[in-house]
Amino acid sequence: MSHVVVVGAGFAGLAAVKSLIKAKRPGTKITLIDQRNYHLFQPLLYQVATAGLSPADIAAPIRSIIPVGVDGADVLKEKVVDIDPVERLVRLEGGAKLRYDELVLACGASHSYFGHPEWEELAPGLKTLEHATEIRRRILDAFERAESTSDEALRRDLMTFVVVGGGPTGVELAGAIGEISRQTLAKDFSHIEPSSARIVLIELGKHILPSFSPELSRRAMRDLEKLGVTVWTSTRVTNITADGVQLGNEMVGSKTVLWAAGVKASPIGKKLGVPLDPQGRVEIDDTLRVIGVDHVFAVGDMARLVDKKYGVLPGLAPVAMQQGRWVARNVLRALDQQPLESYRYLDKGQMATIGRKKAVSEFRGLKMTGLIAWLAWLVVHIYYLVGFRSRLFVLLQWISSYVLFKRGARLITGGDWHSQQSE
Amino acid sequence: MSHVVVVGAGFAGLAAVKSLIKAKRPGTKITLIDQRNYHLFQPLLYQVATAGLSPADIAAPIRSIIPVGVDGADVLKEKVVDIDPVERLVRLEGGAKLRYDELVLACGASHSYFGHPEWEELAPGLKTLEHATEIRRRILDAFERAESTSDEALRRDLMTFVVVGGGPTGVELAGAIGEISRQTLAKDFSHIEPSSARIVLIELGKHILPSFSPELSRRAMRDLEKLGVTVWTSTRVTNITADGVQLGNEMVGSKTVLWAAGVKASPIGKKLGVPLDPQGRVEIDDTLRVIGVDHVFAVGDMARLVDKKYGVLPGLAPVAMQQGRWVARNVLRALDQQPLESYRYLDKGQMATIGRKKAVSEFRGLKMTGLIAWLAWLVVHIYYLVGFRSRLFVLLQWISSYVLFKRGARLITGGDWHSQQSE
Repeated sequence: MSHVVVVGAGFAGLAAVKSLIKAKRPGTKITLIDQRNYHLFQPLLYQVATAGLSPADIAAPIRSIIPVGVDGADVLKEKVVDIDPVERLVRLEGGAKLRYDELVLACGASHSYFGHPEWEELAPGLKTLEHATEIRRRILDAFERAESTSDEALRRDLMTFVVVGGGPTGVELAGAIGEISRQTLAKDFSHIEPSSARIVLIELGKHILPSFSPELSRRAMRDLEKLGVTVWTSTRVTNITADGVQLGNEMVGSKTVLWAAGVKASPIGKKLGVPLDPQGRVEIDDTLRVIGVDHVFAVGDMARLVDKKYGVLPGLAPVAMQQGRWVARNVLRALDQQPLESYRYLDKGQMATIGRKKAVSEFRGLKMTGLIAWLAWLVVHIYYLVGFRSRLFVLLQWISSYVLFKRGARLITGGDWHSQQSE
Repeated sequence: MSHVVVVGAGFAGLAAVKSLIKAKRPGTKITLIDQRNYHLFQPLLYQVATAGLSPADIAAPIRSIIPVGVDGADVLKEKVVDIDPVERLVRLEGGAKLRYDELVLACGASHSYFGHPEWEELAPGLKTLEHATEIRRRILDAFERAESTSDEALRRDLMTFVVVGGGPTGVELAGAIGEISRQTLAKDFSHIEPSSARIVLIELGKHILPSFSPELSRRAMRDLEKLGVTVWTSTRVTNITADGVQLGNEMVGSKTVLWAAGVKASPIGKKLGVPLDPQGRVEIDDTLRVIGVDHVFAVGDMARLVDKKYGVLPGLAPVAMQQGRWVARNVLRALDQQPLESYRYLDKGQMATIGRKKAVSEFRGLKMTGLIAWLAWLVVHIYYLVGFRSRLFVLLQWISSYVLFKRGARLITGGDWHSQQSE
């Protein structure tokens, strides 16, 4: 009986487990470990953060996706706290130890605050559902507090939203906040004018969407400005406080600062005792093995692979899914003492939405912008959404949000669950 | 310019504000204050707690229900911390003071732990969305932990669910947990048998659903038992610990205890300086005025009204809605120096669901049980659900959950939002 352990139920881990199950290799036990009970469709997380969708729309219970039991996999909601590559053991937070023949690490990444962990509290990032509902709470609450305060200065800071980081997440967050203020909430208040809200998108580099071609990033910038977003490029955040963002000697007063900048790989990589790259990723060879560690593969955002054609592969869902499927193949070959096969990245292009009617997308040579790009974005995302139910509901909510011009999930929830009283 | 202040956007407060706006009385300013930004459809809260619906399905942003501005109302997301009936002022947590000509209190109720506040942490009640997601988290997490533990005793306690209180909420919670274990999760685990989960419903009185006729409460008891729920009546909880529930000298080991027992009116009533009943409700006369306080009305769960025909009116949505509409009438008459009119309760009956195919309902003489009662329940609840969107989505989710036999919202979320990493 050989045991394959997969850690992480993101795009990479899920693809790996599905392929392993499909292969039906006799005498192979598969265990999937994740500290959540659901797979999260991260590309739509910003829509939960901006009240367009509910958490359940973009998260599917792992046990509803993966066949469980003899012909399927063991699913454990647990956290891996240590790995012993010599004894081939993973240790779980609960204390249990699992022995593996082959280990697949697909633990993803979280945000990096560039040595300023104290900024996280002031400027939450967007990697989990908890992040998303917290950000939703902060955005909506800012408008509510602006409505009820009589302090003009405070109101101005409450009506100023700063997004740090001009990658796809930052662009999508800023665009959605622009729409909320210009459209969704436009007529909802008596003392404030939501459409006068100020949204600032700050990017350290010369262009937003740096991974896109300059022409597309320019176009994205124009589209953002039409939604009321002010874009500042070549701008460095030097400090974040409860009152706003410090940019060198300039201070932007804001009560809602969101972080979409640095990325940091899952800390589990440290347990392997191999050198990590600056983002904390483990180096893998083109068979997806961790370089220098036997019987351990790593895939997705936590792995650094230099592709002969494309260079270091980006942390995108298509990369993770391709590597997940490929690693299943190589895991089985390893169990059968077959030589491993080299993975080649198949370019699926990249896209980013700007609001609910525009996007930019790049697929090999082909560049799209505006509504066509947005429709392409919609098709792709509905197609990859896990589970029929989610697809149906997300599509319906988007349709209804266009027809009724409302956002379905404008709830300020969270915080302490007890001693909450309806009053 | 006369100013009407309504506190609370539950069934009563919302009905009051809608009627006041409809009346279009010249020179009347209406302000609605609630500490949430949404109206919560409490009758379906147990479905969020049991992963059938998402929070956004049963909560609608107040600003999307109430017309805001000149021809509408001012909506403030604020908490009322004090009332001065002499100066006719309400003081808000933010520090602001509002002067009113007529005040309507509709602040609802929360749970009472009968002098054991320490039980709240161990046995959450079900009054807010935060409660609901916390309960959902605990129920689903118990199964996950049972799957990954090798400790038989712990597993037994994890697979034992205790619901305290045999009113409609307790019955609906227990029934839904029964279905989750018997149907939704039946095939999702490899090490445990969810259908062997033990669900205990504890009621202090002689019958569950004491407000229903004995024959219906007996029927409800049978239906619950078919779903795997053990019903213990005439049973007093003497203590609750992290390990379970103490019943006199008997201890029921359980890691998931839910509270659906006592009710306690909103504490705001204390600020009026009038005597309160044991449940903390203010006494009102049949014009819905607070007895002994001028220019202050109270309606819904926080008000105690003795009806000539029905006695003390129960804390039900229909009562709250009727009183809300009626109080708007009397507020306007008060502003016009007209004599107030007496409110008479129009009996809308009562219902409780048992699982997803059965219910009991009582409307004047007419008693219904089983599927017919459940269909009646469904029609009524869809009809009263606020907002077309919610109606559509809730109906669709129920249909899909029958067709696919899945529960749409099986997410374990919540807890601390930061330092959450996908792993």
